[in-house]
Amino acid sequence: MTRTLEDLVPGQIFTSATYAVTPDEIKAFAARWDPQHFHLDEDSAKDSFFGGLAASGWHTAAMTMRLMVDSEIGKLPLGIIGTGIESIKWHRPVRPGDQLRLTIEVLETREMRSRPGLGLVRLRVVTADAVGEPVQTLETNILVPTRAGQAA
Amino acid sequence: MTRTLEDLVPGQIFTSATYAVTPDEIKAFAARWDPQHFHLDEDSAKDSFFGGLAASGWHTAAMTMRLMVDSEIGKLPLGIIGTGIESIKWHRPVRPGDQLRLTIEVLETREMRSRPGLGLVRLRVVTADAVGEPVQTLETNILVPTRAGQAA
Repeated sequence: MTRTLEDLVPGQIFTSATYAVTPDEIKAFAARWDPQHFHLDEDSAKDSFFGGLAASGWHTAAMTMRLMVDSEIGKLPLGIIGTGIESIKWHRPVRPGDQLRLTIEVLETREMRSRPGLGLVRLRVVTADAVGEPVQTLETNILVPTRAGQAA
Repeated sequence: MTRTLEDLVPGQIFTSATYAVTPDEIKAFAARWDPQHFHLDEDSAKDSFFGGLAASGWHTAAMTMRLMVDSEIGKLPLGIIGTGIESIKWHRPVRPGDQLRLTIEVLETREMRSRPGLGLVRLRVVTADAVGEPVQTLETNILVPTRAGQAA
């Protein structure tokens, strides 16, 4: 089903599949993008600020993006194209064994004055663990065509 | 050289090495974390919003983090630990062949009332291309010990 700006309303909720976090993936992501010892080695991480192996915040953000792309939100006409991120809060570090799942809420929709036919949808994306406690909250705007824009 | 909160002052600038963006890496990152066609395939990307292969914004953020970790900022006592991201703006998509380099500016430093011995340093991290035009601007707070906190 193709959704356009008119089909999205504040308060609307989308959810995602579940993502299982493994120690190997935490280390592999960090080795490439955030090679700090508390993301790379269990023993060294024990004596760190985190007190144990912790995923890079950018890894948490990347897992969140993957879950978004694979969710209903990923099927919007333009996919998921953001002009930026309004904010990210990391409530606690993600750990090996965490099972992550998203709750994506539509906060606001508006047509762009500068680009008729195209709108911005502000989303709050909460990444939560198996017991529903949030590990990350992200707010962003994505581009969604209006019905007229999509037909054109 | 170990720097503490007292050594960082607003206006101070750090720079990074240069990072060369390849089409293979754009596609490999996207395949894992942001599998949308305009990040995965040149031909399909031509007809997309981006008009050609474009890096995922999360890939741009990840390359930025890697450059930060490898810069002088990465040698701070706690490394680079952020409690979140204040904002990210993507000014234009990163393309194959881009050469990225950071300018990291200290915006503000303050000791945490809730955790004496530990401070927050607000940074503006501009990721720019070979001609110095920004592709991404990110603001974040990182944790830096005070001199007393570091000695304790």
